[in-house]
Order: sequence, then C-alpha cells, then structure tokens
Amino acid sequence: MIVVMKSGAARKEREAVTKRIRELGYTPHIIHGTTRDVIGAVGDERAKSVLQTLESMPGVESVVPILQPYKLASKEVKKESSVVPVSDTVAIGGKEIVVMAGPCSVENEAQIIESALAVKAAGAQMLRGGAFKPRTSPYSFQGLEEEGLKLLAKARDLTGLPFVTEVIDPESVDLVASYADMLQIGARNSQNFALLRKVGQIKKPILLKRGMSMTIQEFLMSAEYIMSEGNQSVILCERGIRTFETATRNTLDLAAVPVLKAKTHLPVVIDPSHATGNYHYIAPMSYAAVAAGADGLIIEVHPDPEHASSDGPQSLKPKKFAALMEKLRLFAEAADRTL
Amino acid sequence: MIVVMKSGAARKEREAVTKRIRELGYTPHIIHGTTRDVIGAVGDERAKSVLQTLESMPGVESVVPILQPYKLASKEVKKESSVVPVSDTVAIGGKEIVVMAGPCSVENEAQIIESALAVKAAGAQMLRGGAFKPRTSPYSFQGLEEEGLKLLAKARDLTGLPFVTEVIDPESVDLVASYADMLQIGARNSQNFALLRKVGQIKKPILLKRGMSMTIQEFLMSAEYIMSEGNQSVILCERGIRTFETATRNTLDLAAVPVLKAKTHLPVVIDPSHATGNYHYIAPMSYAAVAAGADGLIIEVHPDPEHASSDGPQSLKPKKFAALMEKLRLFAEAADRTL
Amino acid sequence: MIVVMKSGAARKEREAVTKRIRELGYTPHIIHGTTRDVIGAVGDERAKSVLQTLESMPGVESVVPILQPYKLASKEVKKESSVVPVSDTVAIGGKEIVVMAGPCSVENEAQIIESALAVKAAGAQMLRGGAFKPRTSPYSFQGLEEEGLKLLAKARDLTGLPFVTEVIDPESVDLVASYADMLQIGARNSQNFALLRKVGQIKKPILLKRGMSMTIQEFLMSAEYIMSEGNQSVILCERGIRTFETATRNTLDLAAVPVLKAKTHLPVVIDPSHATGNYHYIAPMSYAAVAAGADGLIIEVHPDPEHASSDGPQSLKPKKFAALMEKLRLFAEAADRTL
Amino acid sequence: MIVVMKSGAARKEREAVTKRIRELGYTPHIIHGTTRDVIGAVGDERAKSVLQTLESMPGVESVVPILQPYKLASKEVKKESSVVPVSDTVAIGGKEIVVMAGPCSVENEAQIIESALAVKAAGAQMLRGGAFKPRTSPYSFQGLEEEGLKLLAKARDLTGLPFVTEVIDPESVDLVASYADMLQIGARNSQNFALLRKVGQIKKPILLKRGMSMTIQEFLMSAEYIMSEGNQSVILCERGIRTFETATRNTLDLAAVPVLKAKTHLPVVIDPSHATGNYHYIAPMSYAAVAAGADGLIIEVHPDPEHASSDGPQSLKPKKFAALMEKLRLFAEAADRTL
Repeated sequence: MIVVMKSGAARKEREAVTKRIRELGYTPHIIHGTTRDVIGAVGDERAKSVLQTLESMPGVESVVPILQPYKLASKEVKKESSVVPVSDTVAIGGKEIVVMAGPCSVENEAQIIESALAVKAAGAQMLRGGAFKPRTSPYSFQGLEEEGLKLLAKARDLTGLPFVTEVIDPESVDLVASYADMLQIGARNSQNFALLRKVGQIKKPILLKRGMSMTIQEFLMSAEYIMSEGNQSVILCERGIRTFETATRNTLDLAAVPVLKAKTHLPVVIDPSHATGNYHYIAPMSYAAVAAGADGLIIEVHPDPEHASSDGPQSLKPKKFAALMEKLRLFAEAADRTL
Repeated sequence: MIVVMKSGAARKEREAVTKRIRELGYTPHIIHGTTRDVIGAVGDERAKSVLQTLESMPGVESVVPILQPYKLASKEVKKESSVVPVSDTVAIGGKEIVVMAGPCSVENEAQIIESALAVKAAGAQMLRGGAFKPRTSPYSFQGLEEEGLKLLAKARDLTGLPFVTEVIDPESVDLVASYADMLQIGARNSQNFALLRKVGQIKKPILLKRGMSMTIQEFLMSAEYIMSEGNQSVILCERGIRTFETATRNTLDLAAVPVLKAKTHLPVVIDPSHATGNYHYIAPMSYAAVAAGADGLIIEVHPDPEHASSDGPQSLKPKKFAALMEKLRLFAEAADRTL
Repeated sequence: MIVVMKSGAARKEREAVTKRIRELGYTPHIIHGTTRDVIGAVGDERAKSVLQTLESMPGVESVVPILQPYKLASKEVKKESSVVPVSDTVAIGGKEIVVMAGPCSVENEAQIIESALAVKAAGAQMLRGGAFKPRTSPYSFQGLEEEGLKLLAKARDLTGLPFVTEVIDPESVDLVASYADMLQIGARNSQNFALLRKVGQIKKPILLKRGMSMTIQEFLMSAEYIMSEGNQSVILCERGIRTFETATRNTLDLAAVPVLKAKTHLPVVIDPSHATGNYHYIAPMSYAAVAAGADGLIIEVHPDPEHASSDGPQSLKPKKFAALMEKLRLFAEAADRTL
Repeated sequence: MIVVMKSGAARKEREAVTKRIRELGYTPHIIHGTTRDVIGAVGDERAKSVLQTLESMPGVESVVPILQPYKLASKEVKKESSVVPVSDTVAIGGKEIVVMAGPCSVENEAQIIESALAVKAAGAQMLRGGAFKPRTSPYSFQGLEEEGLKLLAKARDLTGLPFVTEVIDPESVDLVASYADMLQIGARNSQNFALLRKVGQIKKPILLKRGMSMTIQEFLMSAEYIMSEGNQSVILCERGIRTFETATRNTLDLAAVPVLKAKTHLPVVIDPSHATGNYHYIAPMSYAAVAAGADGLIIEVHPDPEHASSDGPQSLKPKKFAALMEKLRLFAEAADRTL
C-alpha cells in the first residue's frame, strides 16, 4: 500500500502516519519526492479496509492499494486454469465450450420438456430454467418454485442434460441443491453476502453472475466469498453491465473475458441473452464470446417466446438456436476449442 | 402501452399484434402514421413484462410502456406526503428534518456510547450503527451481530435516541426487529427480493437504500415489494450511484430528491457519507440535501476515525459533526423546515 | 410522436395540446386510456426538438418520439449495405475485412516506415498514424502536424498502403485531405459539429469514432451531419465507451456492431486498442469483433512501445501483430469473410 | 509516480525499469514488498503520458501516477480563490452569487429583450442566450449566428446586463469575442483542444462546461489548456454528467462543487437547466447548488417555453424564475453569500 502525503504536509503528520503503519503490522518506507512524500507500507495488505482508514489522518492526500484483495480466486495463487465438473459428462473450463440453454422460467411440463429436447437436439450440453424468479415487480410471475425444480429434474431424466437454476435466498439453498446440478446466483444477488456464504458451504458448482454495476475486482471478491467457505467450484458469468446506452438492455463487457483470464483461474461464461435483451443480437454476441475466449454460454431458448411468462423478447426460438449452434461450431474451431 | 410497428410491416403482422393484445385483456387502438403504424393497448398495464413479450412478434419494432409499474408507492394513488413515525418522539417526512448519525460499525460499548452521546449533544434525533455488516471482502470485519444490537439498545436507553441498523438476510429480520427502531436495507440488497418481502411482513419502519445502479423506477419497485406485503412505512435513501467519476466514492444523485417527491408520497433522506466517501465533502452535501428538499440525513460519525474498523475516511469527528449541525439549521430555516 | 397526458389532466389542457400539435403541422389522434389519455401526433417528426417542447405544456407528463431522427444514415432509406472505397485497392464494408494498423503518433521517418513495412508484411491493408494529436494535457506531445502528413505519404508511396489520419479542427481539413486517403474524426470531436460539417464538404471517406458517452442514436446523428453536407462515405468506428469499470481503459461495446448493422447501411469497424488500453487484450477483442460482424479493425502497432510518444501500453509490437493477423484469418473464415 | 512490478518479476526486468526511469530524468527508488516490488520515480511527472509507457515493459503490472497533471489550475500553485471580473459591475468567485439567465437560443429581438428585462427584474446579474447552437441534429435550428450576437448586445445596452454566449469553432472566436462579455465552451466541445487553445489567446473570461463523461481531472486539464495559452479567466461549469439514470436528462454531480473547491482556485457555477432537463427540478437544484458552495448559476428562462426553438421543457417562465430568485436569497444568506 502506498500513502501519498499532501504537498506541504508537516513532519509531525508524516511521523504519525509511519507510527500508525507500524501499529497495523506493516513496515513503513518513505520516498521523499520533489513536491510531496510517499510512504510505502510493506506487508500483506489483504485487510485493506483498515489501511484505508489512514486516509482520515492529517496530512494524508490518498491511500493507493497495491495488492489485489482476493486470494483463492487469484491466478497468482493457482496458475493453471480450473476445470469445474458439473456432472459425469459435463465440465466447464476445459477445451470444450459448454452451452446451457432453455427458457427464462419453467412454466409447465410441456414447455420445459419441449425446450430440453430442442436444445439437446441442437447440441447444448446443459439445460437452464428458472424456478425461483427474482422479478423487479412484485406483481410479475415469481416462478413455480419447488414444482419448477421437479419439472427440471424430469427434463434432465428424459434428456440426460444436467441443469442450472437460480437460488434467491439462503433458506432455499439446500432445497435447490437437492435437485439442481449447478446453482446460479443472479446479478441482483451478486453482493448478497449471506447467500454467497451459504452456497459456499454446499458441494455443487456455482454459476456466479456479475452484478449490473460490479467492477471486475468486486466480482472476484464475491467469488472469494464462496471459495472462502470451502466451495472452489465457481464459474463466473458476465451478463452485461449497466451504462448510459439504451439500445441494448445492458452493455455486454466482452473484454471482461480476457481480463478475467489474466486475473483468475476460474472459468468464464457469457450470457448474451440478458446482456442484449434482444434475440436479434444473441447469435453475433455468442460467436464473439467464443472468439474472445469464453468457456461457455448461457442462452435463453423458448418454444413460444410471444407467450412466455418472462423475457420473451430476448428468447430464441429452437430453430434459430439450432442455426446459432451450427455456426458457433465454426468459431469454436477457429478458437481451437470443441463444441 | 404503445406498440410501434416496423416501417413496412405487413397487414397480417399488425393483425396478429392486435389479436394478441385482445387475448391479454387490452383494447387495441391503431394510429396509422406516415411511415409506420402505432398501436395503443388500453387497459391496466401493471403486468408489464407480459406485454413486453409483444416485442418478439414479427413486424414489431418496439413496445413503449406508458404507466409506471408501481402503485402503492405512487403519488397518483396517495397525493399527500407520508409521515413515517419511528418512535414516540421521531417521525420522518414532516416539517422537521431528521438527522441519524453514528459510526459505520458498532465496535464496542465505549465507542457506541461515546458516539451516541456526541451525536445527541449536536442535535441528531436518531442513532445509526451497523451490527451485521455487508462487506465486499470476506476477510474484512463483519460486525458484532447480536452483541452489536445489544450495545445499540444500551446506547438508546442511555440517550433516548431511537436507532436504525442494517439487516442483511431474511433469517435475521425478526432478531434485528426485536431490537431496532428502524431497519435498513443496504444498497447491495436493494433488489434482494426475498429480504424485501420479509421486511414487508414486520411492523417496523424500513430505511430502503437505493442500489448503486438502480434507476428511480426500480427504486420505487423495491419499495413496492415491501409495501405490497403490508408494510407501508418505507423511507427512501439516496446514497450515491455508480458512475465513471472516481473523485468521489459514488456520485450523489441529488436531483433524485425532487424527482422522487414528484413521483411518490414516501419520505426521502440522503446519505452524504457513502455518497462521497470523504469526510471533507459531507457538510456541503448535507446542506445541499436539505436545500433540495430532503426529509432527513444519515451521517457517519466516529469518535476516532483513524482507528475505525470500517469507513474511517468518510466518518466525521464529533466536533466537525456539531459544526455541521449548527450550520445545517440555517439551511433548514431557509427551506422552511425545522431541525 | 406520442404525448402522454397526466392522469387527471383537464379537458382544456388536452385540447391545448391537440391545438398545438395541429399548429406544428401534425395530425393529433387521441387514445382514451383507463387512467390517462395518450395523443399520437401523425407526421414526419424529424424536427423532434420542436415537438419536445410540448413537454412544457400543462397536463403533459411526457413526450415519446417514435421515429429515429436520422434519415440518410438509416437502413430504412437505403436497405443494402454501403461499401466505401478508400483507394483503388481498398474498400470497407464488402466481404473483405479491412485492417488499418500503425503507431498512435508519427514520431519520425524511421519509425513510420518501419511500422508501415511491418503491418504490410503482416497483411494489413491500410496504415494509421497521428499527425495532429488531440491530447488531454497541453503539455503532452501534440504531433508533427504537416511534417507527419508528409512522412505518412512517404510510407504510403513505399508500401502502397493508403492511410487514415485524424483531423482536429475545421481549418486544417483541406490540408489533411490533400495528403490522406481517409480522415478520422476522433472520439473527443464526435459532436464537434463545425468539424463534422466541414468534412461533409470534402470528397474523402471519413472514419467517424464514437464519442465516449455517445448513444448509438447520437452516433448516427453525427454521421447524418456529415452526410447531410453531401459526403456519404462515412465509416463508423466503435472504440469503447466510458463506464464505471476501470480494468480496461474504456468498455468495448461490441454489441454496437449488430445494433448498428440493424439500423444503418454504413460500415462498422472496431478499435480494440483504445477500447481496452492494454495490448494484452487486443488480440481476443479483434477476434471477437470479426465474429460479431465488424467490417474492419484499427489497431495500434509500434516497433518500440516502451519509447513511444503516446499510447505505448496499448500498442502491439510487430511480431505480436503478425501473430494476431494469422489467427484472425481463421475467424474471418468462420464469419464467411476474407482477409 | 509509482511502478508496481508483477509478483515474481525477474531482477533483470526490475533493472530495465529503473534504467528507463533514469533515462526519462527521474530518480528511481525501490521498495521491496512481501510479494512484489514497487518502484517510486521521483521528479516532476507532469509529462505523465511518457511515464505511462513503462506499463508496456516486461515485469510491470501497473503504473500509478501520484501528481495531478494540471498546474496553473491547481490550488497547490495558487491557494487563494480566483475572482474573475466579467464587467465593471459583475465578477464571479467573490462573495456575491452571480446568476446568468435567459433563453437557450436567441430567436428574435422581442424574445431576447423581453427575456433580458424579465431576468433583470428578478435580480439576475447576467444575460445568457445562444447565437451559435451546437445541435445534435443537422435538421434542428442552428441559431441566428451574428444576428443573434447583435440582438444580445442590444439587450445588454438596454438592461446593462453583460452577456455570455457559446462559441463553437475556432474561426468564430474573434467574432463572438467582439460582442460578448464572456464566452461559453459547451459540453460537447469540452475537449475540442483547437477551440480551447484559441479562447486561451483572447482576453475575455471563459465559461467552460464540463463534458458529459468528463472526469474532474480531465475537466481541470481542459481549463489548463486555456490557461496555458495565457487566459487565466476561466470559470468552471458543472452541467450534469451522463449516467444510466433517465429520470433526468443528465445526472447533476453536485459533489463536484466541493471537490473542485478542494483542487482548484477557479470559480465554479452550476447549470441546473441542462443537468435536469425539466423545469420542475430547477429551483430545488439551484438552492442545493448554492448550499453546496457554488459561485453562481446559469439558468434557462424563456417567456414562452411552449413555442421555444430549443430546450422548451427545461426553460422557466419569468414568473417562476422570479419566485426562484426570491427563495434563492434565503439560501445565499444561509451560505453567508450575497445575491
């Protein structure tokens, strides 16, 4: 950590800072600059928030952290990429691109079975579908809850596709984990630390979505929450961030793929459906995701988007999804990946 | 709701849209434009997400909602401003500006008692302090939990100041409510719908913070979640939104005060501490908040910020807080409010 | 255009609005809703700003434009994609992906010649290089100006590569146009309307960069400025937008490619260098750009980035650029494009 | 400047960095940390962009600048606040709050005279009005140009109010300066460096608006451009930044007032009209601006907003403006200012 002193800070102020740095267990190291002094605090600065309090000392202009605050998620700790197994047949983070597809919400048996058969036929390796829905409005459809989980399990039995589904509160984690192959933490719960801790205590892989205004560093800190409880099977999912642009529902931050690959060993998947909010843009952004180095995709597919209970405008019909998968193979090959 | 057809959409496509509008229980109304048609769907469009699915129909360019999706929080439903009682002596939303002050975290008995006495002496009407802390890092101080609640209650007994404290998961709502006079939902949980529902079922007032990338409309929808469960005592708190600017920790969206006052009857308070993240800027933004029409302030005050467990750089020392309160009275008077 | 009246607006207010709509040359068309009325104004609403003034009339809640305000740039006016010729050998917007590469600034003859030879050897079809530099600081290197243009022309003569270079004020447009094959309007000048008008009056193709906080619609309006003066040879360049994320210099909005392709006939190229600001991320984002459907790339390449006068950290060395081009061919092929 | 080396960087890499630091004229100073080394470069780092190139050296993780890149605008160079004289009677930055008011565009003689008389009667000290208009659409009203300047001068002669008006390209700076008392650089030209240089060479005060996505630091760098050419009479104007929120036209960053006051000696004024885009919100944000410490306001007032050529929805009628001024006096007094 680096403490930047104000230009003209008194010697007494500087000494108080070095004293406090020592109290906190670090070794101070002063650089006398031409207009101001800078003090390095040598030591493990993971407990960053405490060092940050130096900013309130007289004569201090700013405190600049040097180390990343995450550890288990860091590539410095584990250099080789993690491959997270989901079922006997599916693992995320290896050479194979994994595509999870299905409807936003499970609506009824016919709908989820039809969806599962269609995405399997097109080549998807996993099924997605929401049973517990975090909806912005209390008056919107909130999901079939456990009944939805049972229907997802039925679709899995029929097709062999493992499924991922969202969990929205700590209390229902065990219930969801008893059915699902992978649990999703949604964007709105990406800093729901009670929920992160709870899914850190189970033995199922976790698909962690990036929050709408979450920095890459905060994203990795949320992964760290899960990992620090013992569950190392975390898959990161970029799904668009919130910006001023309204032509798409969110702004897909695709550069997050190489950035995350440089900082963490965890797999990275892309959700082009929520990122764009418009089915027209899903295919090109899926191709781009694979070209950028993503390990997988999660895509909304619905047999009848016009009558969907949620997210109709961003859902692909099975036929369009099949065409997407066909072309995606070409990009996977160009990226030296399989699909 | 307005459905904008594509320029050159076929008559058959338009007819399919009007048919679907009727199926959904609305009355279609066509306007033939010079380059394209526009179809109004007359009816109560609160169940917006379903209408939005029309966007996936052939020939449709976009769907533009007209009504606000919130109802109980809306000024159209209740024209007069709500005054939310917190205790026998304190109510928020009336003529009196209410100031809640205290440390970010409760650290120990001496610290919270000293803080409570100091903020009371300066004129604050409520005490604030965190017992359950939602920290970005799993390695940071997480709060004293129930022990912290007990210390807050002790400080209240001694000073007569009612207190507000944060609750971070549904399971601990009843526990926190058994001690606190008002419960806070933090920015990171502002769309934790399971938690919103739960605090909607208790009888204590709720201080709802705006999420970091939450629109005004989503903010009011989160209030609606609480209110739709039966708890009408919601106070809205703007605490800065996330933007590209890094000179302050967040960007205080002070125009949210008049905007909210135009749309809702609920009281609005400002948190200048989290908004700016820097104690130098708290006083001017407090004055500005009152001038803009806010009903209250929540301010971090710590007897020894340099040794605080969290949020030191944005905490005021008691002496500076007292000076702020002194000057704030002048602005309250200019705004025809009391303090 | 749709005028949304307030719930409970008086009949007199509504009549004043319909009268004003008629005065402005439109035909009003009223839809009586369950809680409020909505008035459609039928007519060509390109002169949008005038209609917007209806928002200041009593009883009006909001004014919602329906038509896009651009015309010449719109796909509705010209359905087939535009192919913009740059020289006898190069055209942008056709089947061939066009790569423009070279240093941020022209520094001296050796540097620009070495760069041009290197990028040509790797397969780039155009040279880029700055002679007039818009620098954030008045104390930074401002470019070699006309001397730089002469060196670029020399490099073109030697390699046969046409070049693109930036123009930063109306006065020097003719000078730059007398040397360059294509003129670039930088992000900071993307709404410098005097400059846009001026380059609309010349006969050279214009590479128009998107502003840092420019919406897609504003981007197309800036293209419209150029086109409305007579110059239809506009190429749009997405180069990253400004968001809260600091892990990259800007946030590359790659979904802008399919969005623009849906709205305009103009070619779209991507600048991964300015978008990411970090040479590590340029290759993956170049592949992603081609996969997303971009027509070209503009990439910073410098023979000695550590000694560059500007933008060193985001410049590729010739060897890395050659490797990028090699792999890019595979993605171009997957996208059914040539390179 | 601080160079952060990668964890595990080789000794050779570190030595290359210290060598390069010396070449650039700085003195390197190494701090050996527990997991990585940090190298301070001691010297005047205003030529920041060159030092930034160290980021492309092997073994370097990041380069952290310590000094602010502006100098003339900095409070470190000139501690006392600047008071910028505009005319014999008006100066900005002193104890008196200066209010500039008038229409967005000058439309005709009657309109500007009526506006000038009205704002003078209400207590404004300066007139504002646009003659050269930077409009997003080439099809919108572009201003009366020199005719508009003449009408503004006529209004000044009649009322004694000095006026501020926008200049949009270097060529017309001398023309505008020959009429106006103060020249405005608009948000879209805030990094039009050719224009900034040109207004730096005249002897009239400059009202510099913050760009829509400009950081505080870039804002001060644009002021530095003007000042480095010799013109020290710069007034900074915050007018809202672009964020995800659409309830207001822009997001007024009012905390920019105390932040700027901490960093620069230049006066700061607020434009609540463009910031909010809605006349309902102008009064509360004007009061808040004065409470936050602003030195002045620039407000759009139009005698007939419904028929305005531009910006109708955000223009106040004279009567409402007079009421605003009345109440503003109370807030000015609370802030220990005059009006």
